[in-house]
Amino acid sequence: MSEHSEHDKGGVYSTKGKAFERDSNYITTRIVVDPEPGTNDFPVEPGRYRLIAAYACPWANRSIIVRDLLGLGDVISMGNPGPTHDADSWTFDLDPGGVDPVLGIPRLKDAYLKRFPDYSRGITVPAIVDETTGEVVTNDFAQITEDLFFQWKQYHRADAPDLWPTDRRDEMEEVMRRVYTEVNNGVYRCGFAGSQEAYDAAYDRLFTALDWLEERLGGSRFLMGDAITEADIRLFTTLVRFDPVYHGHFKCNRNKLTEMVNLWGYARDLYQLPGFGDNVRFDQIKDHYYKVHLDLNPLGIVPKGPDLSGWTTPSGRG
Amino acid sequence: MSEHSEHDKGGVYSTKGKAFERDSNYITTRIVVDPEPGTNDFPVEPGRYRLIAAYACPWANRSIIVRDLLGLGDVISMGNPGPTHDADSWTFDLDPGGVDPVLGIPRLKDAYLKRFPDYSRGITVPAIVDETTGEVVTNDFAQITEDLFFQWKQYHRADAPDLWPTDRRDEMEEVMRRVYTEVNNGVYRCGFAGSQEAYDAAYDRLFTALDWLEERLGGSRFLMGDAITEADIRLFTTLVRFDPVYHGHFKCNRNKLTEMVNLWGYARDLYQLPGFGDNVRFDQIKDHYYKVHLDLNPLGIVPKGPDLSGWTTPSGRG
Repeated sequence: MSEHSEHDKGGVYSTKGKAFERDSNYITTRIVVDPEPGTNDFPVEPGRYRLIAAYACPWANRSIIVRDLLGLGDVISMGNPGPTHDADSWTFDLDPGGVDPVLGIPRLKDAYLKRFPDYSRGITVPAIVDETTGEVVTNDFAQITEDLFFQWKQYHRADAPDLWPTDRRDEMEEVMRRVYTEVNNGVYRCGFAGSQEAYDAAYDRLFTALDWLEERLGGSRFLMGDAITEADIRLFTTLVRFDPVYHGHFKCNRNKLTEMVNLWGYARDLYQLPGFGDNVRFDQIKDHYYKVHLDLNPLGIVPKGPDLSGWTTPSGRG
Repeated sequence: MSEHSEHDKGGVYSTKGKAFERDSNYITTRIVVDPEPGTNDFPVEPGRYRLIAAYACPWANRSIIVRDLLGLGDVISMGNPGPTHDADSWTFDLDPGGVDPVLGIPRLKDAYLKRFPDYSRGITVPAIVDETTGEVVTNDFAQITEDLFFQWKQYHRADAPDLWPTDRRDEMEEVMRRVYTEVNNGVYRCGFAGSQEAYDAAYDRLFTALDWLEERLGGSRFLMGDAITEADIRLFTTLVRFDPVYHGHFKCNRNKLTEMVNLWGYARDLYQLPGFGDNVRFDQIKDHYYKVHLDLNPLGIVPKGPDLSGWTTPSGRG
């Protein structure tokens, strides 16, 4: 789920008087080319794994985009939980019979419990499930996309983009770290703030970072230069949700994305590239945030706006 | 209060499953030049009445602006309840000791009860109170501004604007009626909708009307031509609240006001005229909506945005 610690909250995501703190403990098992003996890592193997990723969730959306860009669709299958979930788990409510057609389960939680019968943390997406056992392998969203790139290289399509350019690695890690703490997670810090003080501080941090990005993107087409990288994917999934949900629902409302010239041009530029906009489901995004966080939006009414027609207009950056 | 039927609701303004219906029953007593025998109308009399109007409330804001434009500040005094109120009444919480300095009461409700001991409808602003008795005279917001113009004419300042031009009266009434039902009240219909269906229908009605206004204002500086009228004041008080509260809090989010060229230019044009912008209190407006409607915004957190600096930029229409 998008908040990574949403489970068992019964629609309550903010805690009165408290700032939002993300539970960042994930299942650390990895899927790698050569698993080290003594680790519980799994081997890369085409046709064995299933990526479970809700289009609604920004963290899951990353992995959908990366899998697509790298051409891994034929070697790693994909299942997609619907946008809303109960306090317990993401569910396969969009699939026929409400069951994932490959795993045969109605709730993602079933794959977690199959491997860890006492699993008590959040049932989060993205997750990768071993189709041979039905057990979850990992839900470590940042490691997942990194491994899709480095560990699955022999299965990438020939013209796959170099999402992790070696010569820019250090700077890219720095940029991604700031984007993660200040923007990807920063919007949640605004939305789930349990006090005015926590919200005010979160808002200032978020827009300070967006101003930095606005300036940075005035100088280059993408975050790391003239080619897309993992850093762009990570920023994109937050930007594409900004006006539809973060602006109103999370009160990130100094301005809309459309009011920041470079960021808006950059976001549209990405949106119009193969693998980006075609993996965005605005309806699912809005349904997820407005229907699941009932402590912020008690009646669960989903706004009809914003007008999204701008996303397909020329960005002037290509 | 701005919703006119907010009393005794304990922070609950929407009813699950229901569309919003405004209680439009007001105290029909008027203040006129020559009260008809047999009516309970009051006579126009300088220094006798006190306008009670919260800057936060759009309906009250109208009367503040009209009083100011007509130069009636010396003949009708004014008291201003703070932006937030409990389930019971608007209160004079911004005044020293929490008491209106002229009426000597902490709650506007006291003036209502003084005249009607069993008063059970909403304690609304604007209200006019007779200073000689401390009793409320009227809270009929639409009649109040009309009477300030026609009944208090001999006390208007010499260069007071003709807010009700006789030769445009019929068309103006028509415009004001549509502005009232579709826009002034239309934003509340979106925000207090108790079901997705009611909200969806309200949203469509609102933006249909805003599109009509956008087009109309492409052809003339003000709603009725090249001079301001009562119709402009009535539209202005909704427009000035649009981006700060209606866009996010009431989900009127197809676009911001700033994204409608003519309406945004028109709103800024008015804002920059004497009597308009100087009677707008953005902080009170935001506090009111976000802190009072706790069924829509349970934690009562007030957004820091939007950036309001655009209001003082040239409108290009003057």
